Amino acid sequence: MTVELISVGTEILLGNIINTNAAYLAEKCAMLGLSCFHQSVVGDNEERLEDTVRLALSRADIVILSGGLGPTKDDLTKEVTAKVFGKELREDTHTKERIQEYFRQVHSNQVTPNNWKQALVPDGAIVVDNHNGTAPGLILEENGKIAILLPGPPNEIKPMFERDIAPYLNRLQPEGIYSKMIKICSIGESKVETMIADLMDTQTNPTIAPYAKTGEVHLRVTAKAADEEAANALIAPVMEELFHRFGDKIYTTEENISLEEAIVRILEEKKLSVTTAESCTGGLLAGRILNVAGASNVYKEGYITYSNDAKERLLKVKRETLMQYGAVSPQTACEMVRGVAEATGADVALSVTGIAGPGGGTKEKPVGLVYVGCYVKGHVRVEEFYFTGNRDKNREYAVARALTLLREELLKYHA
Amino acid sequence: MTVELISVGTEILLGNIINTNAAYLAEKCAMLGLSCFHQSVVGDNEERLEDTVRLALSRADIVILSGGLGPTKDDLTKEVTAKVFGKELREDTHTKERIQEYFRQVHSNQVTPNNWKQALVPDGAIVVDNHNGTAPGLILEENGKIAILLPGPPNEIKPMFERDIAPYLNRLQPEGIYSKMIKICSIGESKVETMIADLMDTQTNPTIAPYAKTGEVHLRVTAKAADEEAANALIAPVMEELFHRFGDKIYTTEENISLEEAIVRILEEKKLSVTTAESCTGGLLAGRILNVAGASNVYKEGYITYSNDAKERLLKVKRETLMQYGAVSPQTACEMVRGVAEATGADVALSVTGIAGPGGGTKEKPVGLVYVGCYVKGHVRVEEFYFTGNRDKNREYAVARALTLLREELLKYHA
Repeated sequence: MTVELISVGTEILLGNIINTNAAYLAEKCAMLGLSCFHQSVVGDNEERLEDTVRLALSRADIVILSGGLGPTKDDLTKEVTAKVFGKELREDTHTKERIQEYFRQVHSNQVTPNNWKQALVPDGAIVVDNHNGTAPGLILEENGKIAILLPGPPNEIKPMFERDIAPYLNRLQPEGIYSKMIKICSIGESKVETMIADLMDTQTNPTIAPYAKTGEVHLRVTAKAADEEAANALIAPVMEELFHRFGDKIYTTEENISLEEAIVRILEEKKLSVTTAESCTGGLLAGRILNVAGASNVYKEGYITYSNDAKERLLKVKRETLMQYGAVSPQTACEMVRGVAEATGADVALSVTGIAGPGGGTKEKPVGLVYVGCYVKGHVRVEEFYFTGNRDKNREYAVARALTLLREELLKYHA
Repeated sequence: MTVELISVGTEILLGNIINTNAAYLAEKCAMLGLSCFHQSVVGDNEERLEDTVRLALSRADIVILSGGLGPTKDDLTKEVTAKVFGKELREDTHTKERIQEYFRQVHSNQVTPNNWKQALVPDGAIVVDNHNGTAPGLILEENGKIAILLPGPPNEIKPMFERDIAPYLNRLQPEGIYSKMIKICSIGESKVETMIADLMDTQTNPTIAPYAKTGEVHLRVTAKAADEEAANALIAPVMEELFHRFGDKIYTTEENISLEEAIVRILEEKKLSVTTAESCTGGLLAGRILNVAGASNVYKEGYITYSNDAKERLLKVKRETLMQYGAVSPQTACEMVRGVAEATGADVALSVTGIAGPGGGTKEKPVGLVYVGCYVKGHVRVEEFYFTGNRDKNREYAVARALTLLREELLKYHA
């Protein structure tokens, strides 16, 4: 089946916001085995919206619209789609009660009159409850064509899609689509693709799709089958083969686990505490580890040591080391990581020192040169990297590489 | 004039990447006074791409395509657009030389044969040099319709647009579009909009457009005029009025200056050094200050103190304070910021302590409660915030508020 995405909103046309909903919906639809050939953005204009909906319905089986379900007069998605399907709007008692209840909880009972507009639904539409806002989702079906209307705010559209829309889309298809994720670090994208080229060349069902992320590669294994059990039977041998090929380079098979979360879990399991000493990344590495809710169990404190003086005073990096090899050197990275472990008493530590750019590079030490030190219970490993991005990208990659290095060393460690 | 954007790329249709180019181009086009009613995304498929280009050209004066100019067989944007305009492709000697030179510099002379495909240009097209890659930009003009083809990578499309495409688009219009930016902090979006409602209600030329950012509001003042001088004459009184209304809440009038960069400049000017002590933001505040190239002049070192022990040991927060008021309290924020200033010898300091969520909240201290302390040469100010987002958003807002607070206090300080 084919799907087409329409994002409704003048703020997207003006470039005020980035269209993250489209990327989210596109990835989810791909996961569900729906083919998407077109995405469109159109403003809150009746005529242009109608033309866009009609064109999309002429090309695709399913059209998913996001945005334009709000309470104001500008919000036209529901009205226009109902018109295209030849449906009248009627008040939905259940939705009206939910809106009343939502306002009771969030806004101490002050429903403004225009909010009742959100209780109007096209005749015959399936109403999908919104657990994070007032505009319900709506599904219209007619003559083999389907329009799915979803609210615009990401914190409303995502839970609604996961909970109700994905299962609905799966039921539409003669065979359901089921998938498993494998997230890989420590190997580059092209190497991963080479290592699975033979599998990808011959794949039919299940299929493997690689997604490159900063310093990681995600593989999604997707099967079509009558039910989840049958799908798992198809997916299992492929997963086994991937585990055979990538081994402990696979850091998780969970959708929602990030690399930093996987690392925090290993630290918790091995009862190790971690700290960081950052120069060029200036707090971003610590910030990423502390993205993980509950990371306070393993991360107690860390240092940002930009100046040589701070490296000497806080981390006990030797002045001779800084003089002889420079602040950006494997020697300094090594002394930094030993120093921060000592200063904090942490079992495990990371240090980062490098030249993020745009200035500060030399012929011997160009912009993008970064050293990462990793300390695990007395053992230190230092790695050298040459990144080729701008300042932001170089810092982002340095953080990703540091996390990868930490994970590798943690796997080797046994108490 | 009207413009329409077409993003070409299967990776966008699959949701592998977020379409940031469209947001960038949309904002730039709006700045240039072009009306954009449609954006589309289409894959590297000849028939669908051709249909999409034809439809866009039927609706708009100018169509801007991004992506699909690469060296592989999949890349079809140039071929399809040339076909629509009825043009043959011919080799462009100048571009061929530039590609040769690019590879000499970046890849030690190894031009792979498929790269020469990028030297083919449609007959009669304007060729726009790419200073950051090998695919040139292309402009086709015919019968009052214009297609502009730009490379997909953001680090190629942005400099090309700024340098060559924006001036080209400005020349097309009977009157040029010129704009000035005003970036405001310390006042919320709705207050800003209330404060300029009268100006916005009566505006014709110039116009004022507000853009809400995390913890900031940007106002763009745009005039249509025969030339830049005439535009400035129209814009100047509006800028004066905005300065009159917002005063020192305006932190810059430069497009490319961020709040953290504006703050680093004030610190440099006032010859003050800065440090940070972070709990819930865990390094993100330092990371943002150190985004600024050259921030090492003012930022030497900082601390991440997640645990109470670290707060006591590194920042000399009193145990009684932590016991009596808790780690998330104005008292702790105050002692943290005094402590980190003392420990580092910095003139100026920020502390952040709060409950980012999702866990850790209580009735008295809910998730989203954050205290920010700001120290300037002995004087401390502490502010309380209640954020209502998820963990990521709460941390992002805490960082933005801390920077805003720092700026306010720096403006009050005179040596």
